[in-house]
Amino acid sequence: MSGTRVTVLAGGVGAARFLRGLVTVVAPRDVTAVVNTGDDTDLHGLRVCPDLDTCTYTLAGAIDPERGWGLVGETWAALGALERYAAVRPDGSTAAPTWFGLGDRDLATHLYRTARLGEGATLTEVTAEIARAWELEVELLPMTDDRLRTVVTVSGHGPIPFQDYFVRLRHDVPVEHVEFVSDGARPTPAATAAIEASDVVVVAPSNPIVSIGPIRSLPGIDEVLAGRRESVVAVSPIVGGTALKGPADRMLRELGHDPSVEGVARLYREIAATLVVDRVDAGSVAAVEAAGMRCVVTETVMSEPAIAAALARTVLDAGR
Amino acid sequence: MSGTRVTVLAGGVGAARFLRGLVTVVAPRDVTAVVNTGDDTDLHGLRVCPDLDTCTYTLAGAIDPERGWGLVGETWAALGALERYAAVRPDGSTAAPTWFGLGDRDLATHLYRTARLGEGATLTEVTAEIARAWELEVELLPMTDDRLRTVVTVSGHGPIPFQDYFVRLRHDVPVEHVEFVSDGARPTPAATAAIEASDVVVVAPSNPIVSIGPIRSLPGIDEVLAGRRESVVAVSPIVGGTALKGPADRMLRELGHDPSVEGVARLYREIAATLVVDRVDAGSVAAVEAAGMRCVVTETVMSEPAIAAALARTVLDAGR
Repeated sequence: MSGTRVTVLAGGVGAARFLRGLVTVVAPRDVTAVVNTGDDTDLHGLRVCPDLDTCTYTLAGAIDPERGWGLVGETWAALGALERYAAVRPDGSTAAPTWFGLGDRDLATHLYRTARLGEGATLTEVTAEIARAWELEVELLPMTDDRLRTVVTVSGHGPIPFQDYFVRLRHDVPVEHVEFVSDGARPTPAATAAIEASDVVVVAPSNPIVSIGPIRSLPGIDEVLAGRRESVVAVSPIVGGTALKGPADRMLRELGHDPSVEGVARLYREIAATLVVDRVDAGSVAAVEAAGMRCVVTETVMSEPAIAAALARTVLDAGR
Repeated sequence: MSGTRVTVLAGGVGAARFLRGLVTVVAPRDVTAVVNTGDDTDLHGLRVCPDLDTCTYTLAGAIDPERGWGLVGETWAALGALERYAAVRPDGSTAAPTWFGLGDRDLATHLYRTARLGEGATLTEVTAEIARAWELEVELLPMTDDRLRTVVTVSGHGPIPFQDYFVRLRHDVPVEHVEFVSDGARPTPAATAAIEASDVVVVAPSNPIVSIGPIRSLPGIDEVLAGRRESVVAVSPIVGGTALKGPADRMLRELGHDPSVEGVARLYREIAATLVVDRVDAGSVAAVEAAGMRCVVTETVMSEPAIAAALARTVLDAGR
């Protein structure tokens, strides 16, 4: 499929696995990922971009396959040493949180990113440098160079930053509301251009609310997608009514959506013409089509690279 | 020697070893160290305070005994991982320097300190928290809560930050000038009070120019020391014409001082009544006294704890 330019709207693990399959069926340099940065957080003064790093490490073949995040063969000496300080911090301080897993080698990524941002580089520039350091040919783009923060209102906790919900509370609390807080964040010109100019746009099998949602919240993105809807293909992150990873199913339900491929179709029908669903949801084709999307059935659980490659092929066929 | 309150003006390794001996002969809670922060640097966005950390880790028994800095049993995964990024940084960027040894567990200290400073804590507060985390009873005080930077003009390089001279260039270049750059840095009230109120003040065997010099450069410090000169005792960092560690001997010579105990006496005579010198310098007693200081001869090379303890006892006797 040489020459097909593909842009993928990406969250973390599911998107990264899709990208890894995609680059085996199109030239990596023809692939751009526009990556969610709503999860980004400042930890210990360091800028941590979980979705960008998951995409980078996965494409580099360096991701830990068990955890799905962080580096394989990672060590945790720094995190362990933080415990000593967490024990003495004053009341009210959130310094030295130890609930967020920063591996020793992973830290280097955050150190470099933070230093470069401090030198005035944009997140887009730093992300390209990090991708180059890992010898990636795929273009990884943060959705914005501005700060946009996903804030989750959870039962009994009020509004809290996404990572507090996702990691500290282990997404084990009912979500009442999700919002994207920014001071007028805009998509980068490169991200908008990639979505406009590619032959196929893929909405990766990521959480529609907190992974794809932040990208769609940026001004103009939904309009660009809607304007080229015929060649936008979404892959359902919901398989048989549950999320393969993370809280997407519960979150959809808690926020009043249907945790099914049909529910996903209702969220995406304005911006994408086709929804790719797993074989276990073959019985829902009519419901998806009734919701306003074409429906393609294939194997979507990317338990091995060959499945991810086949899925990528199916997605591209559906978008052209 | 219960009840004797001692304040030590401290740099890094030599001061830390002296402190470790001192706390075996007086109650640790009667000891305050006022520590040089002119070497402090921002690396990867993290505040690194080498002399404070060397004192902390040494007093905690956690210092690497071979290197004299950093933690024993340290690992270096993060630093190793930075190489990947150092290789791709753009021209002009100094992000991801790999010439400064930050161990994985040591990083936790810098992460905590940076986060706490970011929360608005003073360096004095954070230093006390870090000392508590290591269960130290000694009071460790930074000399100032303001930024003061030791800038070294070296032959062929112009003015550069201290760590560039000391670590990156391995202090292997002639020094033309040393200055302390700040925007009106002041000693902390706690540091000044400790120097005023203690029974004995010790000028540790640290580099007179770049370890003790920054402390003395702060307004009022030399006046307070001069006002109680009789009970201020300096330990010569120069033994037999050379520095035991670091470039003090070369630096003294290059800046027009005499790299000898007599030269040290000329630097300290206004603020200290007594200079403690090593046995190898027993022949220089008359010269030190001619320079205006009483001279005490003892073993000063703290190759083992018993020697450090004996040295501390001698120093306290000289100061009372």
